[in-house]
Amino acid sequence: MKASLSSLFLVLFVFFQASAQTTKLGPVQVQGNKFVTAEGKTLVFRGLNASDPDRLEKSGHWDKAYFEEMKRWGATLVRFPVHPTAWRSRGKDQYLQLLDKGVAWAGELGLYVIIDWHSIGNLKNEMYQSPMYETTQKESFEFWRTIADHYKDNSTVAFFELFNEPTVMGGKLGTCSWAEWKKLMEETITIIRANGGKGIPLVAGFNWAYDLREVAQNPINAEGIAYVSHPYPMKREKPWEDKWTADWGYVAQKYPVILTEIGFCGPDDKGAHVPVISDESYGDAITRYCDTNGISYVVWVFDPQWAPSLFSDWNYTPTRQGRYFRKALQTYSGKN
Amino acid sequence: MKASLSSLFLVLFVFFQASAQTTKLGPVQVQGNKFVTAEGKTLVFRGLNASDPDRLEKSGHWDKAYFEEMKRWGATLVRFPVHPTAWRSRGKDQYLQLLDKGVAWAGELGLYVIIDWHSIGNLKNEMYQSPMYETTQKESFEFWRTIADHYKDNSTVAFFELFNEPTVMGGKLGTCSWAEWKKLMEETITIIRANGGKGIPLVAGFNWAYDLREVAQNPINAEGIAYVSHPYPMKREKPWEDKWTADWGYVAQKYPVILTEIGFCGPDDKGAHVPVISDESYGDAITRYCDTNGISYVVWVFDPQWAPSLFSDWNYTPTRQGRYFRKALQTYSGKN
Amino acid sequence: MKASLSSLFLVLFVFFQASAQTTKLGPVQVQGNKFVTAEGKTLVFRGLNASDPDRLEKSGHWDKAYFEEMKRWGATLVRFPVHPTAWRSRGKDQYLQLLDKGVAWAGELGLYVIIDWHSIGNLKNEMYQSPMYETTQKESFEFWRTIADHYKDNSTVAFFELFNEPTVMGGKLGTCSWAEWKKLMEETITIIRANGGKGIPLVAGFNWAYDLREVAQNPINAEGIAYVSHPYPMKREKPWEDKWTADWGYVAQKYPVILTEIGFCGPDDKGAHVPVISDESYGDAITRYCDTNGISYVVWVFDPQWAPSLFSDWNYTPTRQGRYFRKALQTYSGKN
Ligand SMILES: [Mg+2]
Ligand SMILES: [Mg+2]
Ligand SMILES: [Mg+2]
Ligand SMILES: [Mg+2]
Ligand SMILES: [Mg+2]
Repeated sequence: MKASLSSLFLVLFVFFQASAQTTKLGPVQVQGNKFVTAEGKTLVFRGLNASDPDRLEKSGHWDKAYFEEMKRWGATLVRFPVHPTAWRSRGKDQYLQLLDKGVAWAGELGLYVIIDWHSIGNLKNEMYQSPMYETTQKESFEFWRTIADHYKDNSTVAFFELFNEPTVMGGKLGTCSWAEWKKLMEETITIIRANGGKGIPLVAGFNWAYDLREVAQNPINAEGIAYVSHPYPMKREKPWEDKWTADWGYVAQKYPVILTEIGFCGPDDKGAHVPVISDESYGDAITRYCDTNGISYVVWVFDPQWAPSLFSDWNYTPTRQGRYFRKALQTYSGKN
Repeated sequence: MKASLSSLFLVLFVFFQASAQTTKLGPVQVQGNKFVTAEGKTLVFRGLNASDPDRLEKSGHWDKAYFEEMKRWGATLVRFPVHPTAWRSRGKDQYLQLLDKGVAWAGELGLYVIIDWHSIGNLKNEMYQSPMYETTQKESFEFWRTIADHYKDNSTVAFFELFNEPTVMGGKLGTCSWAEWKKLMEETITIIRANGGKGIPLVAGFNWAYDLREVAQNPINAEGIAYVSHPYPMKREKPWEDKWTADWGYVAQKYPVILTEIGFCGPDDKGAHVPVISDESYGDAITRYCDTNGISYVVWVFDPQWAPSLFSDWNYTPTRQGRYFRKALQTYSGKN
Repeated sequence: MKASLSSLFLVLFVFFQASAQTTKLGPVQVQGNKFVTAEGKTLVFRGLNASDPDRLEKSGHWDKAYFEEMKRWGATLVRFPVHPTAWRSRGKDQYLQLLDKGVAWAGELGLYVIIDWHSIGNLKNEMYQSPMYETTQKESFEFWRTIADHYKDNSTVAFFELFNEPTVMGGKLGTCSWAEWKKLMEETITIIRANGGKGIPLVAGFNWAYDLREVAQNPINAEGIAYVSHPYPMKREKPWEDKWTADWGYVAQKYPVILTEIGFCGPDDKGAHVPVISDESYGDAITRYCDTNGISYVVWVFDPQWAPSLFSDWNYTPTRQGRYFRKALQTYSGKN
């Protein structure tokens, strides 16, 4: 954990200069515990979570303006959470058309993309937190077979997040050992790569993608991947830093780590729920932790209804965390 | 195997006194090889099998009168066999409403309830004896997730019978080792308890829930459960007692045992089929065996069409086995 | 590998004499590495692949004339490739009626039958080469439960080919170890035999049913079965013989082997595709290899549209490979 804040600024600056000169984002690769360009330059991402493209399209907001606003906020990466129910109800071909549009807009603006299979639960038992997350092992494998084949030559889609939030909900969804989870993830990676997918597989751990302690003894048996955590403020009590290091931060010494969901809201804000309630001290702690340790992050969520929201209306009026993270991201990109 | 007939009578008498004084049945727990009240009093149940609540409702007989009649026959426990096809076709919410009514009537009358997931076959391969028993591992897990959550605070629902009759039908449904079966049952118990279910899980063995020999070496890895056998007369040839002890009765030395299906009919009676054909000598043998060994039982079936029937028409006219078991149950409860 | 060409001719002659005298084909059994009659006479089959009976019926060609033509070409065996999608869309009862007709016509003409569950892909993950091959483990098991029960007393249906072409498509369909595949095949064989099926189970290996190298160390744990390969010309480069022996031919020293698909076409012929493009030198090599080693074979395919076709129109005008194999088969049966 050696990256300093000043070296990160340099890295990001170089990256943005580069992207301005090209019409196509170059491939992102894994080198040791870093994401790098083909030229070997380190990339640390500061991104925003879109809501489900299906939902955005239905409400008339799946358009380039949405991506331009994310760009203005300072994002260098955008995550598309594809809900299995949306994928099934819209149908594969129609959903791919949605994704193609978003990937094109992102690419034109120099934003990399994470495609995220947005289920929550125990894939081993095919049991989920709620009906919108229902899927099967087969459907998940077929999703990645399709996505890997479809985006094989598209380096804008830099990341494939295999399964949003693995959890057994304290046994409510039965059991899943790390060995069982690891096997499912390795099978998915095999499928992605055999179908030509070059995006970096992102693998999460249990406790709603919080806990990566098992990686120490039993890392995923595949090269060129990165690990994910969703360290919302209430997963642990303040002070957070040592707990974060023990639970998932230590992984960044050996593998790239990306926090594909962070965020907070006040206790009385719309949609406030465990584990997201906190204040700006969480923002300070998590951004400092990521800056210090070369960890990428993506803030949840660029939508006025899902919580914790980053903006409150379609004029993109920032919420409390919106104000916090817009400033943070714009600082990195030297725009405010 | 120490319980004598006279001590059992005492136990049951105490129990009925207690239930008369309360409007709510207290929780049943496992203590060693016994079912006990919160006060530590031993309970040995003598019960009756309802037919599927869905079926009873459709024919206009899912009413309190049905439960009153079971009470008059001397039952202290009633089993609800929920067929997977009925569960699916009626839908979860509608089926729960049926169950809620039955549980309320039973509770008002001082009858405990077993909810029984009434499938027959090889859950490992998801292959079944006939289409009415079709289910999946996921549907079974979700059934118990739902039931455990729904009845978590309802002590009338004293028992959760995880899967009615496991069988590979001599290989027609493929194979299932005890280790594989055990794993499925342990997963189900984990799900039930994590969802707040306090009912006692009931676990059956192979050969249509007859055989518990594997329990000796490899008991289910969970506290507070009981084992089930369905020792219909033709599972073994007379004299039965030593065979019963070897096949399932020995389990009662260490764990509570409940025979959730027993019964017989003559060879010319309606619906006579292997393995239920016998005569009153079976009734004498099985009731004596249970009385001597502190084993609970539930007679199949309080329906005029399913076999072997306990009554022949909706005036509740007892059949041959109906006369036998009504007298037996009423003797325990001191009513005839 | 001791059978010589002249002894094979004798064997086949005996067999045809026998079949002329009976109205019913006797059972085929496995003895060492041979198929034998009840009297112990060795049978080596030379057969033709029908196209899917569902397809033939829809186009008006599922009739006795079709079987008479196969008989005229010298076939002693016909394979019915039952596609899972056709099985589901027509429905079990209707599809069985189709099969019954075909089995009856075949039996009347002295042709044995292979029923082939014609899927291509990774049954472990339930992922397939294309949608027409979609099935599940359960559906496959149920198919064989149905077929085994239905044809249990019909010795015309001499062979049950459990799964046409196992393949992971280089990882596109994930992984399947030989141990995993072996377990699925053994489970299927258990189901077939417990349901009374006496047909000989045919088991294929990976690489689209080409590769049987794993059999050397880990044969299927069941007596009375045979192994399958589909050695199309482009699976290996000329000269083929030593490679065939190493990849699958060696199995014939210990178990009966049947090549349930062979065939070729020229590079400009209709439907030419990898791995079937070759010329008559392939025909010479594969027929000589089978004749020398007592290996049965079945040519793909007796249909004017599927490739490589054996005839080009419904006058049964032979294609290039049709001319080659019609002559070869008629030579065995002494008819040209
Ligand atoms: Mg499945
Ligand atoms: Mg989340
Ligand atoms: Mg399944
Ligand atoms: Mg029964
Ligand atoms: Mg083929």
